[in-house]
Amino acid sequence: MDLLISGGLLVTMDPEFRIIEDGAIAVEGDTISAIGKRADLEGRIRAAKTIDARGAIIMPGMINGHMHAAMSLFRGVAEDRSLDDWLRNYIFPAEARNVTEDFVLWGTRLGVLEMLRGGVTCYADMYYFEDTVAQVTKEAGMRGVLGETVLDFPAPDNKSPDAALAYCEKYIDKWKGDPLVTPAVAPHSIYTASNDTLIKTAELARRKGVPILMHIAEAPFETELSRARHGGSPVHFLETFGFLGPDVVGAHCVWLDAADIATLLKRRVGTVHNPSSNMKLASGIMPVVQLLHAGVPVGLGTDSAAANNNQDLFQEMNLAAKLQKVSRMDPRALTARETVEMATIGGARALHMEGKIGSLETGKQADIVLTGLGATHSTPMYDVYSQLVYALNAHDVLTVVIAGKIVMEVRVMYTMDKPLILAKAHEYQRKVAASLIAPPPV
Amino acid sequence: MDLLISGGLLVTMDPEFRIIEDGAIAVEGDTISAIGKRADLEGRIRAAKTIDARGAIIMPGMINGHMHAAMSLFRGVAEDRSLDDWLRNYIFPAEARNVTEDFVLWGTRLGVLEMLRGGVTCYADMYYFEDTVAQVTKEAGMRGVLGETVLDFPAPDNKSPDAALAYCEKYIDKWKGDPLVTPAVAPHSIYTASNDTLIKTAELARRKGVPILMHIAEAPFETELSRARHGGSPVHFLETFGFLGPDVVGAHCVWLDAADIATLLKRRVGTVHNPSSNMKLASGIMPVVQLLHAGVPVGLGTDSAAANNNQDLFQEMNLAAKLQKVSRMDPRALTARETVEMATIGGARALHMEGKIGSLETGKQADIVLTGLGATHSTPMYDVYSQLVYALNAHDVLTVVIAGKIVMEVRVMYTMDKPLILAKAHEYQRKVAASLIAPPPV
Repeated sequence: MDLLISGGLLVTMDPEFRIIEDGAIAVEGDTISAIGKRADLEGRIRAAKTIDARGAIIMPGMINGHMHAAMSLFRGVAEDRSLDDWLRNYIFPAEARNVTEDFVLWGTRLGVLEMLRGGVTCYADMYYFEDTVAQVTKEAGMRGVLGETVLDFPAPDNKSPDAALAYCEKYIDKWKGDPLVTPAVAPHSIYTASNDTLIKTAELARRKGVPILMHIAEAPFETELSRARHGGSPVHFLETFGFLGPDVVGAHCVWLDAADIATLLKRRVGTVHNPSSNMKLASGIMPVVQLLHAGVPVGLGTDSAAANNNQDLFQEMNLAAKLQKVSRMDPRALTARETVEMATIGGARALHMEGKIGSLETGKQADIVLTGLGATHSTPMYDVYSQLVYALNAHDVLTVVIAGKIVMEVRVMYTMDKPLILAKAHEYQRKVAASLIAPPPV
Repeated sequence: MDLLISGGLLVTMDPEFRIIEDGAIAVEGDTISAIGKRADLEGRIRAAKTIDARGAIIMPGMINGHMHAAMSLFRGVAEDRSLDDWLRNYIFPAEARNVTEDFVLWGTRLGVLEMLRGGVTCYADMYYFEDTVAQVTKEAGMRGVLGETVLDFPAPDNKSPDAALAYCEKYIDKWKGDPLVTPAVAPHSIYTASNDTLIKTAELARRKGVPILMHIAEAPFETELSRARHGGSPVHFLETFGFLGPDVVGAHCVWLDAADIATLLKRRVGTVHNPSSNMKLASGIMPVVQLLHAGVPVGLGTDSAAANNNQDLFQEMNLAAKLQKVSRMDPRALTARETVEMATIGGARALHMEGKIGSLETGKQADIVLTGLGATHSTPMYDVYSQLVYALNAHDVLTVVIAGKIVMEVRVMYTMDKPLILAKAHEYQRKVAASLIAPPPV
């Protein structure tokens, strides 16, 4: 064996939700080869490398289902604004003035670094220069479903939807089949991409066999626009021309009626909840309980650091559980275990990757996180799911393994140059701050 | 001078909300003696001890307005329950089986340790054996408004309200005038204390000149009970017999109508918002925006670790801002600065201590926190209030000064024995877990 992680509280998130005290997990290549009690595995397995996990939770790597990693450089750039105002008057202009391939390189490095340090082993990204995002992700040893954004107005990389589609085709051909990077297309939304653009994007995705990532039914203005232009909800509109399918991942999905939920289920669309972003931008409250009850996969995402303002998936679990409880006035809504599910195997289902990642099971990819339990704020412990959702945070993550490779060990990064990334982020902070007070470029 | 903290981004929370880049603050004894630019203070002040604050935020110590510190030993003991069910069927029985003076000693140490490590310098507590709570607080060098609980059924320390009131009188006489500990009385609520008990408790508090801490209008069942028994809301009921006054601190205050808010303002009652607890127990959403608009002081609290499940006031700021925005569908509701205010000077107002603590101003108590900005999740930064509310967490706190004394420096505790406290917490974890599956004591 290549790696043996041994001695921790093993939370499998497998179909029986097995929890193994004093557990162990063996890895061969990129794959989990055995799971069981420490005494059993240590007796029969010799590994090139052993990690002592005593005092830690051994859990599946978490899945951040919706992100714009490069926007980490815009952390906190515009606050206390609604989605529409924030996008059109702050974010899109800030992007027009600042986003270059180099910005995406360093911004994505910053975002990936923060996610890895918080126990995220796979993320779904939607941005520009996505080939650069893919390179950063692969060099960091991280897993990603990485979607090149397609929209109707000129973007920082491509100046027309046709140029974006041509970029996508080349980008997909380059990355298709990569063990870590799944290339994808990302039509931004129904309010930034025309019917024609959406159809062409879906057609390309299906021809190439790659996922489609999209913001769907995020905020009230989107529903109003959809009703006015298309005579129905965003989901209803997308269904009218065959856009929805088992390759679609819908971020947000806040404004859904019962018919929309039935459509998402029928078309096997994955959905991703982003509680920080939805609360902070006052977009609304996703009907998570109804979606899960119906059987629609629901993952969990941080959205970008500009809308959150961090990439701590523990915080999203905390918010998700608490928001469902208070908004439904039902303390039993979205239990701690259901919430951990959203951050792991539920997120894998939402990304249509549940056969490969999301739980610790023999034959699955070895995406494994060790989270320490020795802190003041996590002592004592009576229930591990409750501890994960309500007490711990990103800083408690110790060690991260992706596809069998150790990327962080006891908070030391093996695949990324943290001091250099933070120094570059400070450089960009000065540029971005200056651009915000400067007149728009001619 | 005794202490000079120099070189950080100084967030004063004074009436002008001054922010001083490359600032400095000088301390003599327990008092802030000078605030200004580093270059200015370093030129004219010599101090026995200097703390280099470059790369950190220098901010007022945070105020946790509502806590039951000893319950840290019950962290996560019962989950996904409503307040009424949780209290009567889980927490009160667990307390009857476990809470002794020794439990309160170690539980309070654990809670105080966690709060100090998260930048809290003053807290309001309601529990049993409050004399022990006071001893722990003083030995830790922390500031507290510490209320002995009074209720009608037998408590772990006192078996009747009269016994509790006698305890209170002795406890107050012992601690009145202490520079760190403000003794207080804490009638639990209108649903656990009779009219007679409430009147006697208020009478004692006013005779002794100490604050009254109480759960007020926390959950729907309390309002229903009040309407059925007393013909009006909890606030209306308390007003009918002169209970409310400028010495009262009401925790929660979720279920208020316009008349209740007017009453709280008229009687100068302080209120404390506990977003984690209110969301997790599905108690409801406090009308924070309306209270602040009316001019009622609103502080921020974590409530106990059994209802939260940590004591991270940064997390409460994050939740408070996001919850108001989404519940009002207004992204401008409760701005980042207003939220930081709730955790500092607003909390001081709620505890009726704004003349002494809550902001960094010459002549005020030297309760000062240094929070680091060097982490991945806090890089870059465009706005310091936004960073505090949306990006940082308890772990970013570096150094804590209370009444001029350094209690933690670069995360090393000077006043508490962390390894011993965690070891004792693990011992109690085993006892509590065993008690939960055992039959009730005869």
